[in-house]
Amino acid sequence: MGLLVVGTLGLDNVSTPFDKIENALGGSATYIALSASYFSGPVYLVGVVGKDFPEKYIRLLEQHDVDLEGLQILENEKTFRWAGKYHYDLNVRDTLLTELNALENFDPIVPEKYRKSKFVCLGNIDPTLQLKVLDQMESPRFIVCDTMNYWIEGKKEELLQVLQRTNVLIINDSEARLLTKEPNLIKSAKVIKEMGPEILIIKKGEHGALLFADDIIFSAPAYPMEMIYDPTGAGDSFAGGFTGYLHKTQDLSPENMKCAVVYGSAMASFCVEKFSTKGLEELEYLRVQDRYRDFQKLSQFDEKE
Amino acid sequence: MGLLVVGTLGLDNVSTPFDKIENALGGSATYIALSASYFSGPVYLVGVVGKDFPEKYIRLLEQHDVDLEGLQILENEKTFRWAGKYHYDLNVRDTLLTELNALENFDPIVPEKYRKSKFVCLGNIDPTLQLKVLDQMESPRFIVCDTMNYWIEGKKEELLQVLQRTNVLIINDSEARLLTKEPNLIKSAKVIKEMGPEILIIKKGEHGALLFADDIIFSAPAYPMEMIYDPTGAGDSFAGGFTGYLHKTQDLSPENMKCAVVYGSAMASFCVEKFSTKGLEELEYLRVQDRYRDFQKLSQFDEKE
Repeated sequence: MGLLVVGTLGLDNVSTPFDKIENALGGSATYIALSASYFSGPVYLVGVVGKDFPEKYIRLLEQHDVDLEGLQILENEKTFRWAGKYHYDLNVRDTLLTELNALENFDPIVPEKYRKSKFVCLGNIDPTLQLKVLDQMESPRFIVCDTMNYWIEGKKEELLQVLQRTNVLIINDSEARLLTKEPNLIKSAKVIKEMGPEILIIKKGEHGALLFADDIIFSAPAYPMEMIYDPTGAGDSFAGGFTGYLHKTQDLSPENMKCAVVYGSAMASFCVEKFSTKGLEELEYLRVQDRYRDFQKLSQFDEKE
Repeated sequence: MGLLVVGTLGLDNVSTPFDKIENALGGSATYIALSASYFSGPVYLVGVVGKDFPEKYIRLLEQHDVDLEGLQILENEKTFRWAGKYHYDLNVRDTLLTELNALENFDPIVPEKYRKSKFVCLGNIDPTLQLKVLDQMESPRFIVCDTMNYWIEGKKEELLQVLQRTNVLIINDSEARLLTKEPNLIKSAKVIKEMGPEILIIKKGEHGALLFADDIIFSAPAYPMEMIYDPTGAGDSFAGGFTGYLHKTQDLSPENMKCAVVYGSAMASFCVEKFSTKGLEELEYLRVQDRYRDFQKLSQFDEKE
């Protein structure tokens, strides 16, 4: 049974201090699906594009065992477009353009064969659409949700409804503080868990990620990088790696979830090494495993007996 | 042979959103010495106070096996004073007062019996004074240096001289960026290692610490804390725990240095749990070891075979 992913597919114009790229493949569902594809196929994708969505991107997704029965291609619409500019400090980005286009009236339809999926990854998209997808699922076992400040500020009520049906929320540190109005992340995590998700992951960019599961806290390091070419999609790649690994291993214990966080972090590190989705296009699973071991070297320590 | 510590001793007025305290024991040498005392005694302390320095603080240091032969008590001077106010976001602090007093004309004299010390911890103080101490040492094997933005901006040349004679620099992330004008910490670390220290530790507050030793990078997590009562002295406590553990084990391998970073982080976490030096005053080594194991639980992960 496939891992169901819903989210955006888009065409991005991105500029960083190092380079720029136009009409690049983007969108939360895209990054999640490509990232998850290294762990378990098929990925069932629910999303929408316009007729301008390049055929080569369709083929790229298909090559990664992404099932596109749930992808709506609207004849009279254009694909969602986003343009952003990163500064020398890559933590700061300006959004130059957001054109919803095909997303504007998107009504997600989950194909019959997707509805029995047990693992669902709700990528960053309007929480109303996340709810519509959940409503069509038969009996999902494990629901992972990603979101962003835009929905926390603009659609909080709908987002809270999603959270009540979510097993894992993945969010970054500033979003956690925004959602809870609590500056201390440990306290903030407690507040968020009361909103529904029994498991919470707080991403901290160059500082790694925190996992709150049952009564454990796990702190994953970030991969040390001298050069980040394009931060776009890092969070989505994390979500894809995390969910893909859990879907592959079918083990939802806190111990295995720690490994999933590290695999998510590994996929995010591959993502930002190249522009757009390039870092996720031609990986091999052996390289993913090597990077997992790099994370172990980075964080393991023990006293001599 | 004792671990030699030089730095400031002071009387602090500190206010946080939770409480305030006046004439509290403070200063970099104080925190370093108390923290290191849990690992190996005696600590040889070089510093200066005025005649107003309370007798009870002298006794406290002596109770922690801190040798005070190197402490100058100046009859006609007052003790160094610092006053600061922390805000709800404890990363932000205002310095309300700095009175150098006895520090103003401090001429550090290293007592004869201290001069053979092999381990030296240069706490945060004017780098001119750090150099004067080093000049009096016979053949130190391992020199750890702490500093702050004030000296990076005001006495960079002298600081660079210290760094050329230093084995380990401990610095926080914003100071590393300030020292190198390089926003990326991994690149910044390379630049700093070219300034002299073969080992570098970058402290990142609530995000833990990075160790750069030989060709390894180690990422230590921060202890998850819901409440930080008083961040004063956290960095000094880290330096004391790090150096004290290495002095105790006499093992300067990168693997052991990772453990030292974790012990430093553990001591910093005890420090900030209470006001002033209270968190370091009545610990037991068993509790320090328990916290070390908490750090292991926080960061260790492994896939099932």
